[in-house]
Amino acid sequence: MISPEETTGAAATHDASLAPLPASTRVYVEGQLHPQIRVPMREIALSDTKSFNGRIEKNEAVRVYDCSGPWGDPDFKGTPEEGLPALRRDWVLARGDVEAYDGREVQPQDNGYLTEKHAEFASKSERANRFVEFPGLTADRRQPLRATGKPVTQKYYADQGIITAEMEYIAIRENMRRAKIADLAADIVRNNLDKQHQGSTQQAASPYTPSIFGRFPQRIPAEITPEFVRSEVAAGRAIIPLNVNHPECEPMIIGRNFLVKINANIGNSAVASSIEEEVEKMRWATKWGADTVMDLSTGKNIHATREWILRNSPVPIGTVPIYQALEKVNGKAEDLTWEIYRDTLIEQAEQGVDYFTIHAGVLLRFVPMTASRMTGIVSRGGSIMAKWCLSHHKENFLYTHWDEICDICAAYDVSFSIGDGLRPGSIADANDPAQFGELEVQGELTTRAWAKGCQVMNEGPGHVPMHMIEENMAKQLEWCHEAPFYTLGPLTTDIAPGYDHITSGIGAAMIGWYGCAMLCYVTPKEHLGLPNKDDVKVGVITYKLAAHAADLAKGHPGSQYRDNALSKARFEFRWEDQFNLGLDPVTARLYHDETLPQDGAKTAHFCSMCGPHFCSMKISEDVRQYAAEQGIAEDDALAQGMAEKSKEFAKAGAEVYVPV
Amino acid sequence: MISPEETTGAAATHDASLAPLPASTRVYVEGQLHPQIRVPMREIALSDTKSFNGRIEKNEAVRVYDCSGPWGDPDFKGTPEEGLPALRRDWVLARGDVEAYDGREVQPQDNGYLTEKHAEFASKSERANRFVEFPGLTADRRQPLRATGKPVTQKYYADQGIITAEMEYIAIRENMRRAKIADLAADIVRNNLDKQHQGSTQQAASPYTPSIFGRFPQRIPAEITPEFVRSEVAAGRAIIPLNVNHPECEPMIIGRNFLVKINANIGNSAVASSIEEEVEKMRWATKWGADTVMDLSTGKNIHATREWILRNSPVPIGTVPIYQALEKVNGKAEDLTWEIYRDTLIEQAEQGVDYFTIHAGVLLRFVPMTASRMTGIVSRGGSIMAKWCLSHHKENFLYTHWDEICDICAAYDVSFSIGDGLRPGSIADANDPAQFGELEVQGELTTRAWAKGCQVMNEGPGHVPMHMIEENMAKQLEWCHEAPFYTLGPLTTDIAPGYDHITSGIGAAMIGWYGCAMLCYVTPKEHLGLPNKDDVKVGVITYKLAAHAADLAKGHPGSQYRDNALSKARFEFRWEDQFNLGLDPVTARLYHDETLPQDGAKTAHFCSMCGPHFCSMKISEDVRQYAAEQGIAEDDALAQGMAEKSKEFAKAGAEVYVPV
Repeated sequence: MISPEETTGAAATHDASLAPLPASTRVYVEGQLHPQIRVPMREIALSDTKSFNGRIEKNEAVRVYDCSGPWGDPDFKGTPEEGLPALRRDWVLARGDVEAYDGREVQPQDNGYLTEKHAEFASKSERANRFVEFPGLTADRRQPLRATGKPVTQKYYADQGIITAEMEYIAIRENMRRAKIADLAADIVRNNLDKQHQGSTQQAASPYTPSIFGRFPQRIPAEITPEFVRSEVAAGRAIIPLNVNHPECEPMIIGRNFLVKINANIGNSAVASSIEEEVEKMRWATKWGADTVMDLSTGKNIHATREWILRNSPVPIGTVPIYQALEKVNGKAEDLTWEIYRDTLIEQAEQGVDYFTIHAGVLLRFVPMTASRMTGIVSRGGSIMAKWCLSHHKENFLYTHWDEICDICAAYDVSFSIGDGLRPGSIADANDPAQFGELEVQGELTTRAWAKGCQVMNEGPGHVPMHMIEENMAKQLEWCHEAPFYTLGPLTTDIAPGYDHITSGIGAAMIGWYGCAMLCYVTPKEHLGLPNKDDVKVGVITYKLAAHAADLAKGHPGSQYRDNALSKARFEFRWEDQFNLGLDPVTARLYHDETLPQDGAKTAHFCSMCGPHFCSMKISEDVRQYAAEQGIAEDDALAQGMAEKSKEFAKAGAEVYVPV
Repeated sequence: MISPEETTGAAATHDASLAPLPASTRVYVEGQLHPQIRVPMREIALSDTKSFNGRIEKNEAVRVYDCSGPWGDPDFKGTPEEGLPALRRDWVLARGDVEAYDGREVQPQDNGYLTEKHAEFASKSERANRFVEFPGLTADRRQPLRATGKPVTQKYYADQGIITAEMEYIAIRENMRRAKIADLAADIVRNNLDKQHQGSTQQAASPYTPSIFGRFPQRIPAEITPEFVRSEVAAGRAIIPLNVNHPECEPMIIGRNFLVKINANIGNSAVASSIEEEVEKMRWATKWGADTVMDLSTGKNIHATREWILRNSPVPIGTVPIYQALEKVNGKAEDLTWEIYRDTLIEQAEQGVDYFTIHAGVLLRFVPMTASRMTGIVSRGGSIMAKWCLSHHKENFLYTHWDEICDICAAYDVSFSIGDGLRPGSIADANDPAQFGELEVQGELTTRAWAKGCQVMNEGPGHVPMHMIEENMAKQLEWCHEAPFYTLGPLTTDIAPGYDHITSGIGAAMIGWYGCAMLCYVTPKEHLGLPNKDDVKVGVITYKLAAHAADLAKGHPGSQYRDNALSKARFEFRWEDQFNLGLDPVTARLYHDETLPQDGAKTAHFCSMCGPHFCSMKISEDVRQYAAEQGIAEDDALAQGMAEKSKEFAKAGAEVYVPV
C-alpha cells in the first residue's frame, strides 16, 4: 500500500490528516428529542451519469459515517495544544448527577519517574518533546467529574427508561441516510440504489445458513430509533463508551445489532515514538475510520501522552491500566498491589478514559493450563497477572476486587472491556481449555458488573483457524449473556508475517458476520515491529472493509447503499466517483494513474485492463440499451421474439470497438 | 507492501525472481512406482532452540510445496531463450498413444497482424522487443503431439485404472513431509509439532458446523496415495491440467480433497507491457507460489507471448481462447465464427496450453436477464458471447459445438475451465438468475465433457457478500456433480478499490474452506489498472495465505505443520526462523528492521512491541519452566499445592525485567 502523504515528510503527513477527502463535505444532522445535538457525516458528491446515448442523470450525494470529529470539519480551527471543544460537557452537567472535585494529584510516577526531580530533569533533557504537559485545559475543567450517588452510566439511564442525548445522537449516526433514502424512493428505484440483499439476520430459514443464526439471531430493525438504542444498552447487548471526563468524545455504540466497529491501537513504547507522533496517529486513524482508539503506551510519560490523546480525541479511548500500574512498580509484576492498581484506575478515570481492559478472568487455576501451549500466554496483561498469581499463589486481585472496580467505573461511566489474558497466540492454541475457562469467568464478571450499572464488553481471540471461529462467537454469546464481543482478528493462519492484517482481516470479517460487535485492528507490522502511520492506515482500511463486509452479511439496513453507488459509478466509467466512494480515494487514484496517468483517462469509457478498443462494460451497456429499447423484461426475452429484433440490434451498434 | 527488489531497477528485479529464498535448499523426492520422477520441494533450515536455562535443542528443517520449477533450483543454468527442459516428454511418448505431426502453420493473424508484411514491419520497428519469436525449440519438438485414437487425458487413464507418473508425482507433492513426520514422531511430540486441529472434514458432527459439510463433506485421507489421486481424477472431483505439448510443466492437481491451489493472471494488453515483462511476471508469480498462471494477453503478439510463457513455465498455463479469436476478427464479436474459434483452439492446443476457459454456458436466453443488473456483464468472454448471441440471435456457438470442442481437448489433454460469463460484477448482482442459470448449464457441459474423457473444472464468482458464498459452493457441487470449482475471489464488498486483494481474499479463504479447489488471485490494482510485479507478488501472497487458511479449516493433513513451526520460532524469539518460515521472508525481515535494524535485535529475547524491559513471552516461558520444574500437569496444578511452591518461584526468577 502506498501512501503518498507518508513519503513527503513530517509536515506533509501532519497536514494530510486534516486535508479533507476528495469531493467531500462535512454535514450535520440535528436531533429532535435533543435539539442541541448535531451529528457529523461526510457527504461525497457524485458526478452525473452520461450514457452512451447522451442521456444525463443526476446522482445523489452519498453520506457516510465519519469518525474524524472536528478535525474533519474544514471550518474547525482548533489546534492539538488547545484540544477539542467539550461537546458533551453540558449534557453531562445537565443530568445533575455529577460533582466536580479536586482530583488526585499527578505524581512523577504516573509518568514513570521516581521523583519530581527525575521528571524535571527528563523534561529539560534532549528528549524534552516527550514530556510536555498538555497546556489546553480551561479553568472550569481542571476539576474532574464523578457521580454524586447513583451510577452515571448510559446503562443506568437506559435501565431507568431514559433516552439520553447520546442515544439519540447514536440513532441518527447509525441510520445514516436511511430516512433520506426513503424520501428518494422514486429516484432510488430507478437507479437500483435500493437493491440490498437480505442479510443472515433475516435468512435464518435459508437452507444454507442453518447454523448459529437460528440460535443467536441478530435483531436489526429497519430503522435505528433512539428507543432501540436505549433498549439495547439496557439489555447489555450494546455499550456506549463515554467517560463523563471525556466530553470531547462523540457518542458511538458497540453492539451486534449496530454497525460493526473497529478499534486502532496506538501508544508509545520503550523503544520508539513520541507524544506528538501518538496524537497524530490517533487523528490519522480516526480520519480513515477508527471508531475507537486504544492507547497502549508503556515506558515513560504515559500520563502525559494519554492527556494529549484524550483532549484531542473525538472517539472513545481505551486503555489497559495494568500497563501503567506495572511501570509504577518498575516492572516487577509481583510488586503490584490492589492499592496501586486502584489508584491508577482513578487516575485514568479522572482523565477521561472511556473503557478499561481488565484481565480479571485470568484465574490462578488457569495459569498452569498454559504450560503445554505452543505459545504460552501472549497477552501482556494476561502474563502480568499470571506472574502475579504464581508469585503470590493468590487469586488474581482484579478478580477478588471486582466489585470495587465496578464501583469506580460506575462513578465515571468507564465501560469494561473484560480482557482475554489467555487468548491463543497461535493456531495451535486456539479454543483450548485455558481460553474457554477464562471466557466463562468473563461471563460471571459481566453479570456482576451489570448489577452495578456498568457497561461491559468482552475481549476475544487472537489466532483461530476459520472453522473454529464460530465456536468462539457462540460460546461468548451464551456464556457472556449477549454482551458485545470485541476480538483481535482472529488471525486464520500463522504463516504470513508481514501480512497479518490480511490473515486477521479474514477472521475479523467472519466473526463480525457471526455477531462480533467490534474488531481490533491488526497492522502489517504485527509480530514484527511498531506500526508507523502508513501501517496504521492500512490496518484501519483493512478492518473497515472487513467490518463493512460483515455489515453486508448481517444485512444491516442501508449498508449496501455505498457498494451500489460505487458499483454504479464503476459500471458507468465515472472514475472519480469510484475513487471517491472508496474507503481510500488516495490510493485508488494513485493505482489508476500508475497505468493511465492522463486526465482524459479518468473520464474515458474504458480502463487499462482491456484498453480503448474493447470493453465488456460497453457491451453490457449495449445489451441493456437493447433490452430497454425493445422493452424486454428479464424473463420474456424469448417470448418477445428476439429473432426478429437481432437484425435491428446489429444495425444499431454491433461494433465492439469504441471509437478512440 | 514494500518489495525492495522492486525499487532497485529492472536488472535487480530479474535477479530477484531467481534468487533463492533465505535458508532454503532445493530438495527432490523420488518416485517408487515411477522411479524416473523427482518431485521438487523447498526445505527451510531452522536454528536451534535456546532456552532461558541454556538448554539447546535442534529444530527439524521444514519442507514446503514449491511451484518455482527449475528456476527455483540454484543448480539449473538455463535461460528464458532456451526454455525449460522437457520434463514430461518421455513420459508422454512412453504411453505410445500420441503422434508427432506437422502442426498448423503460424499465421500473421495469430499475432494480430493482417499480413506477413505488417508483422515484419512491426518486428523491425521500435517495438521490436515485443515481437521476437521464441528461439529455443529443439528440432525434435517443432512438431506438436496429439492423440492417435483414444483420449490422452489423465482422466481417461484414471478411468482405465492406470496410475500415471503424473499421479505419483502429485501424491508425493501433496504429502509433503507427512511420511517424514511419521518417522520423527518422537521428536515431534516433544516439540508440539504434531499438534493439528481436526478440520471441518472430520467435524461434520460438531454442533457448530452443521451446514453444508454434512451434505458435501471433504474426504481427505491421512495420506495422499497415488491410487487416491487416480480415483479422484476418475471421479471427476479433481483435474491434472497437463497438455501433452507442455512437457516443461510439473504435475499438480486441482480438487477439493487436495491442497487449495491459486492462480495468477498475467498477460499483455493493448495499453502496456511487453513479452519480457510477462515471462518475468510468470516466473515471479511461481516463485511466490502461483500454482497455475493464466495468460490473458490481448492485442498484438498473443501467439509469440504465449510461446515464451509456455516454454518457460513449470506450472500449467490457462488461456481464454476467445480473446485471441476476437483479435483475429478485429474485435468485431459478431464476425466470430466457429471455424475461426476452432482454428484458435488447435493453435493453442498445439502450443501446449493446459486449460481453456470457455464461456459455453452463456446461452441466448440468459442475456436479457442481465439488462436489469447493477453492472451488466463484466466477464470479457461472457460479453463477447452475449454480443454474438444477440447479433445473430443464435445460440452460443461454443454451446452448439461443445462435442467438437471436447474432441479437440481430449486429443491434447487440455482441461476445461468452463467459464462463468455471467458472474456478478458487484455485490448487488450476486447469486442472481442469470448467474445461476449459467451454472446449471455448466453442469450439463461438465457431464458431456466427462463422457468424452475430458477433465473439467467450473469457474465461479466474482462479487458475493459473505453470507451468500456458501450457496455458490453448494449449488456448484450439486449441479456440476462435484467437479472442481475455481473462483475469482469472491469480493465481499465493493467499497475498497485499491484493497480488492483483501476484500476478495476474505471470500477466497471462505469458499476454499467450503470446498473450492482453486482461487484466482486478485491484485491491489483490480478495477484500477494493470498489476506490476509488486502487485503480482502481493496478490499471490494474499491468495497463498487464504488458500492455506482454507487448508487448515478443511483439516488437510499436515497443513498446520508450518504454522506450528513458525509459532514455535516466534515464541522462542528465533526471529530469522520466523521470517524464513513465512510466505514472504523478505517483507517480514524488512518490517522488523524498520523498528529494530540492529543485528543483535534479531537474536534478542524481546521485540519492539514491548521493548527490552518487559516481555509477555518471557513470562510465559517462566510459567512453563515453573510448571515443568514442579511437575505440574494441566489440571492438577491446584491439587499439587501451589501455595507452597509460589515462594520458590519468586526466588527462582520473579523479575519481569530481562537484563539488557
